[in-house]
Amino acid sequence: MARDEGLTRRGLIGAGAASGAGIVAARLPEAAEAAPRKVDAIVIGAGLAGLAAADALRSEGRSFVVLEARDRVGGRTQNRSIGKGDVVEIGGQWVGPTQDRVLGLIDDLGLETFPTFIDGDNLYFRSANPGPLQLQRYTGTIPPANPVALGEVQLTITQLDSMAAEVPPEAPWDAPNAVEWDSQTFETWKQANTASDEARDLVDLAIQAVFAAEPRDLSLLHVLFYIAAAGGFNRLIDTAGGAQERRIVGGSQLIAIRLAKRLRPNVVLKAPVRSIRHGDGLVRVRAAGKEYEAKRAIVSIPPTLAGRIRYSPALPGGRDQLTQRVPMGSVIKCMAVYDEPFWRAEGLSGMTTSDTGPVKLTYDNSPPGDSPRGVLLGFIEGQEAREFTSASKAERREAVLTSLERYFGAQARTGVKKYLDKSWAEEVWTRGCYVGYAPPGVLVGYREALREPVGRIHWAGTETATVWNGYLDGAIESGRRAAAEVLAAL
Amino acid sequence: MARDEGLTRRGLIGAGAASGAGIVAARLPEAAEAAPRKVDAIVIGAGLAGLAAADALRSEGRSFVVLEARDRVGGRTQNRSIGKGDVVEIGGQWVGPTQDRVLGLIDDLGLETFPTFIDGDNLYFRSANPGPLQLQRYTGTIPPANPVALGEVQLTITQLDSMAAEVPPEAPWDAPNAVEWDSQTFETWKQANTASDEARDLVDLAIQAVFAAEPRDLSLLHVLFYIAAAGGFNRLIDTAGGAQERRIVGGSQLIAIRLAKRLRPNVVLKAPVRSIRHGDGLVRVRAAGKEYEAKRAIVSIPPTLAGRIRYSPALPGGRDQLTQRVPMGSVIKCMAVYDEPFWRAEGLSGMTTSDTGPVKLTYDNSPPGDSPRGVLLGFIEGQEAREFTSASKAERREAVLTSLERYFGAQARTGVKKYLDKSWAEEVWTRGCYVGYAPPGVLVGYREALREPVGRIHWAGTETATVWNGYLDGAIESGRRAAAEVLAAL
Repeated sequence: MARDEGLTRRGLIGAGAASGAGIVAARLPEAAEAAPRKVDAIVIGAGLAGLAAADALRSEGRSFVVLEARDRVGGRTQNRSIGKGDVVEIGGQWVGPTQDRVLGLIDDLGLETFPTFIDGDNLYFRSANPGPLQLQRYTGTIPPANPVALGEVQLTITQLDSMAAEVPPEAPWDAPNAVEWDSQTFETWKQANTASDEARDLVDLAIQAVFAAEPRDLSLLHVLFYIAAAGGFNRLIDTAGGAQERRIVGGSQLIAIRLAKRLRPNVVLKAPVRSIRHGDGLVRVRAAGKEYEAKRAIVSIPPTLAGRIRYSPALPGGRDQLTQRVPMGSVIKCMAVYDEPFWRAEGLSGMTTSDTGPVKLTYDNSPPGDSPRGVLLGFIEGQEAREFTSASKAERREAVLTSLERYFGAQARTGVKKYLDKSWAEEVWTRGCYVGYAPPGVLVGYREALREPVGRIHWAGTETATVWNGYLDGAIESGRRAAAEVLAAL
Repeated sequence: MARDEGLTRRGLIGAGAASGAGIVAARLPEAAEAAPRKVDAIVIGAGLAGLAAADALRSEGRSFVVLEARDRVGGRTQNRSIGKGDVVEIGGQWVGPTQDRVLGLIDDLGLETFPTFIDGDNLYFRSANPGPLQLQRYTGTIPPANPVALGEVQLTITQLDSMAAEVPPEAPWDAPNAVEWDSQTFETWKQANTASDEARDLVDLAIQAVFAAEPRDLSLLHVLFYIAAAGGFNRLIDTAGGAQERRIVGGSQLIAIRLAKRLRPNVVLKAPVRSIRHGDGLVRVRAAGKEYEAKRAIVSIPPTLAGRIRYSPALPGGRDQLTQRVPMGSVIKCMAVYDEPFWRAEGLSGMTTSDTGPVKLTYDNSPPGDSPRGVLLGFIEGQEAREFTSASKAERREAVLTSLERYFGAQARTGVKKYLDKSWAEEVWTRGCYVGYAPPGVLVGYREALREPVGRIHWAGTETATVWNGYLDGAIESGRRAAAEVLAAL
């Protein structure tokens, strides 16, 4: 599927990316040489937000250049070859209903999606349960927890959805109860609104899965905003009908790769932007030894990284302080590759919900189509990701396989042909995933500073999205919104 | 007092600093030329932490160079001339009992302290009180609030001190209730432990005064740690007997200036460090067009700014993510200068405690000794500082004088000879004051990453202090501790 991309490993995909996407066409150096130096807009960051912004400028006939620090496009989406032409994603990978922007773009780019594998029984592991009840099979979306706990969880979801309905995603700080909700952690709210350990554990797991952070790290208002931006709590956590519903044939990084092809030769890789001069009617940036000049800039990287760029004149204090307050989540995405998806033969879907780490959540992430191979995907999230980020690869492999064995039996360990993982906190040009989040006080404290342009500098990135914040869809929305600001100002 | 410092305005004091400290002796360019390029340790940042670290290295006969981004030393301490030889501090200024390191250093450097002016009645303003009770005089440390509120406040302080006693300042994450306390905001705790509006307002004011942040921004555990590091809540908020007890003749920046003189020619100004190469047995830094090489480095700047330096090899994910999570407080320090301290003639101390902003806290900050002039000091803190940081100087002046007039009458406005202020969020090499703080989840989430060296890189700065964290004393402690690490490793 990816074989037709016509991109060198050293080109838009990046070293170490999908070998399945080989075959040379556009080489990076040529692209860099051919990129214009005086443009209407400089876009910083070739993740989906930046590329979507550039594409919007292109479609309006405006000139632009995209400057990307890495040797690849795609930002938090990244394909990895697992050999034999198969690709998995070591970053963001899923799309789902109501994510109309990314679904439309996938279609527009000639890509295809396929459903996340969900056939068969899911697994529910609860360490406190006696003997055979520790690991239970179940079908559907509701794990076989204690009915009291399930009732609590259901009530929790209903309450959260109801509160989220009062939060305007474009201005959560204007919610009627914004100050009250931004004055507490999600943990505080959870403790006041759940009673049983099992319900709390399930809520914790959902929060860890969605934010790659702990309930204590997050402002309640931020959680409500995030739910509102996604259109409901279940949208966030569901596979069928939710954000994990579908995958992209050839790997999600293909969206960025194909978009970048459309934008060639105006995408320059290995061009980290360390400083931005602005304020004299122009924006000037030096990257990869070249000088770029534009009327406007769109900074399409997470707020915390945007704060590490030097601006001249310096950013206003409010904007700078905002960048100090939107930390990235903590996640290690881990995959074990097998000759076949052996769990399917046992009637298992590959999905696990567990209270015991470091992997508490698994999915069948096997390649689509004719590939015989099976892939189990496990996430290490939040606090455990912070602890395991400093572990060696061998230690992580051991811990992950121990988790997988707990759920899928000895074969999950003995049958492993390949193990791969990535701790996104270590990635210099991302420094955490899935997304930057707001601790208490930040949304009501800094408000519009999240998105408000500073002179000729505009802010994109999924952290600035008002729809599906934190997701591919939000990244695209944010890029297009920033491009619209620029187009209106040019 | 400052006239004998023998430092040019362009030298260690910095442009715009105390003209009273004039008279040329060591010029910056000479110092920069004379500074060694191959040393035992490079110290980054010439605030009190960095200078204390360097001084500790010096006293052990080790070679060092201090690289400072600004054109002055002193970091968050900064003198400002108000003419006629008088100096005020636009940054940190106070010292108090148990701050033995800074008091010892002041003595060692031949500097003198004098007591903060507290004679006469304090003022208590409460907008909700009827007519003449809005503005009341009082003596001592306890404002004339409703007795019920006072009881609540007293109980609150007792509770906080009692909880803080369980928090080891060197490892707050190891407190028996660390997770529980780091899972909630201080606001949550306050709401659960106070009932009356007046008590809550008083607690808010204390928190704003100490942290330059809102109760909702702060982890309860961080507040308890901070209390523990200071040796008690009242130590933090008191003038007599507390952290605001004494001032330094000639201005607090003189500590740094005199320390730097002792360290000449090894303090290089206007030498911002953008990147640090390390990991091959040496540390290499390029600053102000020169290359420096050392066995070790001490990074003596706030964590959020340390995160903006590029490290090669890159920082471990845990340390980088920590730097994303320790935002700086928000404060605008404002002073109005008068021909005389007119409030003293009315029997007023100049101290005000108010529920109405933007200035809710004032002090008599008049020069010591023979100067006839009077200075009222007012703080804009936390949320109001965030809002006023984008206001024009004229708007700020107007708002501050309106506050001062509310407390001290028309003369506070009509008699103003000079107005000065500084929003520390705007200062590029600080980006907020008084100090970086921990939102919920950070202390238990990142633990030792706050101080643990990364290879040959050591971390100083008052944010890393275990005694008087956030204060001059803590800065010195942190610098000496980092120097001790380096000395042990050399």
